[in-house]
Amino acid sequence: MPTLRIALAQVNSTVGDIPGNVAAVRRWSQEAAAAGAHLVAFPEMMLTGYPIEDLVFRNSFVDASRQALATLAADLAADGLGELAVVVGYVDADGPPAISSDAVPGVGRRDASALLHRGAVVATYYKHHLPNYGVFDEDRYFEPGDTLTVVRLGGVDVALTVCEDIWQAGGPFTAARRAGVGLVVNINASPYELNKDDVRLALVQRRAVEAGATVAFVNMVGGQDELVFDGDSMIVSASGELLARTGQFTEELLVHDLSLPAAPTSAATAAAAALAALAEDPAVVPSDGMAIQRTTIDSDIADVSDTRDGGVAERIEDEAEIWSALVLGLRDYVDKNRFRSVVLGLSGGIDSAVVAAIAVDALGPERVTGVSLPSGFSSGHSKDDAADLAKRTGLDYRVEPIQPMVDAFLANMSLSGLAVENLQARVRGVILMALSNQDGHLVLTTGNKSELAVGYSTLYGDSVGGFNPLKDVPKTMVWNLARWRNTQGDAPIPENSITKEPSAELRPDQKDSDSLPDYAILDPIIKGYVDHDLGRDELIAAGNDAALVDRTLRMIDLAEYKRRQSAPGTKISGKAFGRDRRLPITNLFREGR
Amino acid sequence: MPTLRIALAQVNSTVGDIPGNVAAVRRWSQEAAAAGAHLVAFPEMMLTGYPIEDLVFRNSFVDASRQALATLAADLAADGLGELAVVVGYVDADGPPAISSDAVPGVGRRDASALLHRGAVVATYYKHHLPNYGVFDEDRYFEPGDTLTVVRLGGVDVALTVCEDIWQAGGPFTAARRAGVGLVVNINASPYELNKDDVRLALVQRRAVEAGATVAFVNMVGGQDELVFDGDSMIVSASGELLARTGQFTEELLVHDLSLPAAPTSAATAAAAALAALAEDPAVVPSDGMAIQRTTIDSDIADVSDTRDGGVAERIEDEAEIWSALVLGLRDYVDKNRFRSVVLGLSGGIDSAVVAAIAVDALGPERVTGVSLPSGFSSGHSKDDAADLAKRTGLDYRVEPIQPMVDAFLANMSLSGLAVENLQARVRGVILMALSNQDGHLVLTTGNKSELAVGYSTLYGDSVGGFNPLKDVPKTMVWNLARWRNTQGDAPIPENSITKEPSAELRPDQKDSDSLPDYAILDPIIKGYVDHDLGRDELIAAGNDAALVDRTLRMIDLAEYKRRQSAPGTKISGKAFGRDRRLPITNLFREGR
Repeated sequence: MPTLRIALAQVNSTVGDIPGNVAAVRRWSQEAAAAGAHLVAFPEMMLTGYPIEDLVFRNSFVDASRQALATLAADLAADGLGELAVVVGYVDADGPPAISSDAVPGVGRRDASALLHRGAVVATYYKHHLPNYGVFDEDRYFEPGDTLTVVRLGGVDVALTVCEDIWQAGGPFTAARRAGVGLVVNINASPYELNKDDVRLALVQRRAVEAGATVAFVNMVGGQDELVFDGDSMIVSASGELLARTGQFTEELLVHDLSLPAAPTSAATAAAAALAALAEDPAVVPSDGMAIQRTTIDSDIADVSDTRDGGVAERIEDEAEIWSALVLGLRDYVDKNRFRSVVLGLSGGIDSAVVAAIAVDALGPERVTGVSLPSGFSSGHSKDDAADLAKRTGLDYRVEPIQPMVDAFLANMSLSGLAVENLQARVRGVILMALSNQDGHLVLTTGNKSELAVGYSTLYGDSVGGFNPLKDVPKTMVWNLARWRNTQGDAPIPENSITKEPSAELRPDQKDSDSLPDYAILDPIIKGYVDHDLGRDELIAAGNDAALVDRTLRMIDLAEYKRRQSAPGTKISGKAFGRDRRLPITNLFREGR
Repeated sequence: MPTLRIALAQVNSTVGDIPGNVAAVRRWSQEAAAAGAHLVAFPEMMLTGYPIEDLVFRNSFVDASRQALATLAADLAADGLGELAVVVGYVDADGPPAISSDAVPGVGRRDASALLHRGAVVATYYKHHLPNYGVFDEDRYFEPGDTLTVVRLGGVDVALTVCEDIWQAGGPFTAARRAGVGLVVNINASPYELNKDDVRLALVQRRAVEAGATVAFVNMVGGQDELVFDGDSMIVSASGELLARTGQFTEELLVHDLSLPAAPTSAATAAAAALAALAEDPAVVPSDGMAIQRTTIDSDIADVSDTRDGGVAERIEDEAEIWSALVLGLRDYVDKNRFRSVVLGLSGGIDSAVVAAIAVDALGPERVTGVSLPSGFSSGHSKDDAADLAKRTGLDYRVEPIQPMVDAFLANMSLSGLAVENLQARVRGVILMALSNQDGHLVLTTGNKSELAVGYSTLYGDSVGGFNPLKDVPKTMVWNLARWRNTQGDAPIPENSITKEPSAELRPDQKDSDSLPDYAILDPIIKGYVDHDLGRDELIAAGNDAALVDRTLRMIDLAEYKRRQSAPGTKISGKAFGRDRRLPITNLFREGR
């Protein structure tokens, strides 16, 4: 059996930054070649970043991606890497770049994988299964491909597939079995969710067995807006055995030697040849619905003198996984959008303490400013705990008392009750935005998912900010994260912030428990209602108290009104701003410069 | 030829308010019966409202829709309307209500039309073509149907179809020709876009000719979040002749007599019967890919003694169309979300004047509060023009000078330049939100599409608010609307607000033209780049000045950074809050009470 040395480049690309992404491919290809690899695979949409959303409707962007691919092939050869087979994701389109501006969206655009070799694009493959659930909208953006691409490399038949192709039965992996390939390369942009690594392994194992081929699964790593990609790349044998696996949340080149079955040659049995012919007879539509396109690369696979085993990285515990995701998500949001630094309000409470610790882990203390914003209702321990946090983390610390500004509003307007509580939170928001304008910081928001779900926050007050690491983290998990982080070397979070009773401190002696059920009771109801779409009866059947379910559901439903007091308007043309989600998210793809 | 009296109920339904929508069906069915109609058709998703988005993933909601349909059929019969055939849209699902919470989204949910008669659901049809572009996400939410439903009513074969079925060639309309029907009922939730009425008429004419049948097209009317439905219901003959058409933006019952070809009976020719048999042979897959399901209603079609012609409503000019859309969109956002009143800042400029006039037209002056928020930089004419507008419209007017609050911030923080400009806009936002909290108003935002596109606004300042009627209206159109509105009876908008040069008045003698190209030059570039995804080269080829294209594209790209300073965070579970668009938009569907 031929031995192929495979490299999986688990790397970080940026939406819109085609030159930067191309440079990363050249850099990591150099590393792969230095390690003696015969083939290196990069993630889905490596050249464009993922998800590109409405950028796919810009001819100028799609053309830039296609042009970059052709140039990359030539540049790799010029770099002396022509013998290395490079598999890389990009966006392609059918035909010449001449899509009219009013074409139905999605027509002819392809989520594509290409194999580059000796300065040329040797083969291309178009993703067959397009996900259109959860965070995915690919039916909107792409046309599905219906041809499996098989490249013979060093005597081994290698099939190219993309991401979702591995999540659904049928299609490319069934066609791969029919084609009798030795290796399936599956390139991914698979976003992190808690415990998704367990799901992925079982899935890759199942498809490897179905295809009867080794599967090399490479995933992107890095944050992109609200998504974070965790990597977790792996190689699984045709019998379902896990051969090698990367860690999560770090860039890494996994290099592993694979002994793979030789493709049938002239010496192959007549039966195998007949089977292959049948499989490729255009008159026969196979059950997987796919055609097979074969290419052979004229390639000298160098013998490898040593052996390389990629190893299997150990899995990490839940809190470590989540912490890493939040740190990476924040760092990449700040860096990819080219903000210099961040600023956040420090109340002395647990949420802002955890966000500050995440920010310091992500950016270093010199890029983080924490502001204590005490009012007349702020307790002594609030100020002490905020100062203590600053000291423990080394972040830049300042104090901006809000009372003089609050008093100016109260002296000039007739306000009472909730309006006065919210006023304090809004003055804090104005101060943080003023510091943002003055010093160029991105403002971080610190509301946790439990608060946001039940509407326990002030619109345009504590909700002011460009990024909120905790928006998807329930309050009970915020405490878990704090306790876990304090066991890792230094202990950035003051113990008192973890143990004291939570309070918004917007009126005398206010406590969260005045308005909300205990978080240990609240969080499972939120998870059921928001994350899993369970109804009232289902939640009660699951063991939650009926009165608390009714109270919580009412709060969550009413919180929707708070969200409805932000952003929308009436749409009279194809694209508007505000709540509209189809914005031209250009990030680094700047046409005007 | 039998004569059927058809009623098209162009009515307003509300997402989530199933009881209210059912009540509307009963009320309008009574009207249709009183007018002697044999069949009345209601819009797509009438019972649930449209678009229901993630509500479709709640079993409890889908079950409520199905239950409401069954109850409605019985209630109509109890109302004495059993002989009236009622066609109504709702959400259905395959099988019993037992979809597991972790099922792949969209599996088994159907965008459905039902025909009710004599207390029973006589026939159902599942939408075949699911739109997944622009504002539509139906591949995410629904499974397509593949059976055309034909109901024989009073000797005429009537086919049921839904919305997008008429926008795409092939499918149900081709199957309708095969089935030889006399009438196709197409129920819609087709959102308004400028001049879409012209597109619709040509489309309905084309499909009527293709189907060889009269087409009755009924559309929803009303605002729902950022969408507005304009109605524009119509009946077109098999030869493509427009027979009747409603106006736009108003609820209306169109009643029209149609002489339609009788369906083949036992006396029909053998050839027709053979053709029909062939069409329905399950062994033959027709080119439209659809099966045909036939039902006959045992119905006595009463002869009509008079004649009814629905008439063809005249089209209105662009400004009237847009103004009506903005008024209806705002009114329904306020009323469907049950806000009592609105508040907005009045600068004396054109944008806030137009929004105030829209609000007064939508809600009446007693539900609109306008606040003049002068600073030290506000000119005399700004205050005069705001007061003049208040007097012309009769809205509730108050003045809240911002300087004392601005000074409190400046005295306690070290701010300069843009930070000081933005501070003023943010203090105004805090005042408006305080009034909102104190008095229950919804805050209206007034930034036009041109400003929003190039980022000429203050985040958390003038962007504060729950609804912005102008978010999709370019500045040049704002002026057109103002001039047009002032020709309609009263003239609510001060002439000086229309003619004076636009200014943000955040520093001495500031003018929009200090920072922006002339709006007449800017707006076409924005339209090309944002609405039509044109690239730099295409915009220049279209005749725009190269330097201005570069400058404008750079502004639009950089404005994205402003939007990026609001809302997102890292997602670690299926559903989060903030920028996430998959919120449980429950509106009036409240499980907790």
